[in-house]
Amino acid sequence: MPLRIEDVIHELINPVGQLETTVDVLEFGDPSAEVRGIATTFVASSDVIRQAAKSGANLLISHEGIFFSHHNNREAIKNDPVATEKRKLIEETGMAIFRFHDYWHRYQPDGIMAGLIEQLDWQKYLAEYHPASAIIQIPEASVREIAGHLKSKLGVPYVRVVGDLSMICSRIGLLAGYRGGGLMAIPLFEQEDLDLMILGEGPEWETPEYVRDAVQQGKRKAIIVLGHAQSEEPGMNYLAGVLRARYPGLPVYFIAEKPLFQII
Amino acid sequence: MPLRIEDVIHELINPVGQLETTVDVLEFGDPSAEVRGIATTFVASSDVIRQAAKSGANLLISHEGIFFSHHNNREAIKNDPVATEKRKLIEETGMAIFRFHDYWHRYQPDGIMAGLIEQLDWQKYLAEYHPASAIIQIPEASVREIAGHLKSKLGVPYVRVVGDLSMICSRIGLLAGYRGGGLMAIPLFEQEDLDLMILGEGPEWETPEYVRDAVQQGKRKAIIVLGHAQSEEPGMNYLAGVLRARYPGLPVYFIAEKPLFQII
Repeated sequence: MPLRIEDVIHELINPVGQLETTVDVLEFGDPSAEVRGIATTFVASSDVIRQAAKSGANLLISHEGIFFSHHNNREAIKNDPVATEKRKLIEETGMAIFRFHDYWHRYQPDGIMAGLIEQLDWQKYLAEYHPASAIIQIPEASVREIAGHLKSKLGVPYVRVVGDLSMICSRIGLLAGYRGGGLMAIPLFEQEDLDLMILGEGPEWETPEYVRDAVQQGKRKAIIVLGHAQSEEPGMNYLAGVLRARYPGLPVYFIAEKPLFQII
Repeated sequence: MPLRIEDVIHELINPVGQLETTVDVLEFGDPSAEVRGIATTFVASSDVIRQAAKSGANLLISHEGIFFSHHNNREAIKNDPVATEKRKLIEETGMAIFRFHDYWHRYQPDGIMAGLIEQLDWQKYLAEYHPASAIIQIPEASVREIAGHLKSKLGVPYVRVVGDLSMICSRIGLLAGYRGGGLMAIPLFEQEDLDLMILGEGPEWETPEYVRDAVQQGKRKAIIVLGHAQSEEPGMNYLAGVLRARYPGLPVYFIAEKPLFQII
């Protein structure tokens, strides 16, 4: 019996159960088509779509929205030339694209977080999973040393830091994706007695300004901001491993993108 | 007749008229107190408050919220130790703090934008003001050259770029503050036939990913992200100049902060 796209989607959402509202839909493609290969990625850019097609995959699983918005507001970009050309590319390649965001975050543990912790080789230091964060208890290290570890393990060219690079940390909050906002991150410092928070992305005037004030008061606090993609790509790589184990013999690829920003 | 805090506030909001809803309030201080000196800043951090007090100013005008949220959600940080110590510092210094965000953005032109354009020495290239952006038409220059100009004029150590550094630009959209989101920024590329957009801050998965896709399609588009504070500090410096002209003899200071993030 051939493996169909709808079978894969069913398997992916099964551990969570059908959500009432979700952005996770089959954006393109025929659910009854046979799956010849799967590619996973943080966000299906034009290059990622081309690379997936070249590899022979016909199902691409994208964590973030492919038309530049979380809620995939297609009305807003109906006549936009970039979106139009991207739609054309998708149709030409015949690529099916499934958005896998909400469900993956609701796995127990969150698939994105589990992948990040694995890529950082920090499973042994995991103290606790919260729904939107993980608490990591490491042997004492400076902010600078931890930043070096992150850069090396994630293969990223830089990280952004607020705080003193020489500060010694052992208790870390890890928040992947857009979870760096003040309402989520700020109370965690106290609740979990954290020295350091490692964030994907968040508004600059909230948690970063909080840490600036804390440091100016002589408190021992710091944050490292990885970037949204850098914090969530490992979770989509991890998903590729899960799918390989589930479908032996089916080609499954993880496609990484280059860093979004250059620093100059 | 002494100049009172309420007189200064009245002057500041007068060109706009009373807004029905606004975050701009006197956060601390007695409106009837006499003004001995004014300091302006992007966000009143603990260091800024101390520096303002040391200068002899007793009215500090802050563009962003002083408790790490735009809507100044004091309930959320009621028992937070950083907020508590900051309140204590404000009370000890007796500093009056006026939030000046919404009104300044509604000046014609937007005071934040006018200050940014002046600091960039781009008044001569201003093509048009929109309510939330300005269109700048410069003699042809590469993205790399423009980034160099921004760093030099704003005194910032780095900018973040999506796109080709060698791309030649002449038509630029300028969006200060948190106006880099997709709904605001993406349509502007087409409507204004822009090569480059210079943004304060915005979600990474919207406009930056749009530009990544555009570049991968061979289109000539780029963005430079300054950072929220870097894009709005010049507008608060500009405000200090406006107040100096309005109140000759009264000491008026602009207080800059160090860059929020270190890149490592």
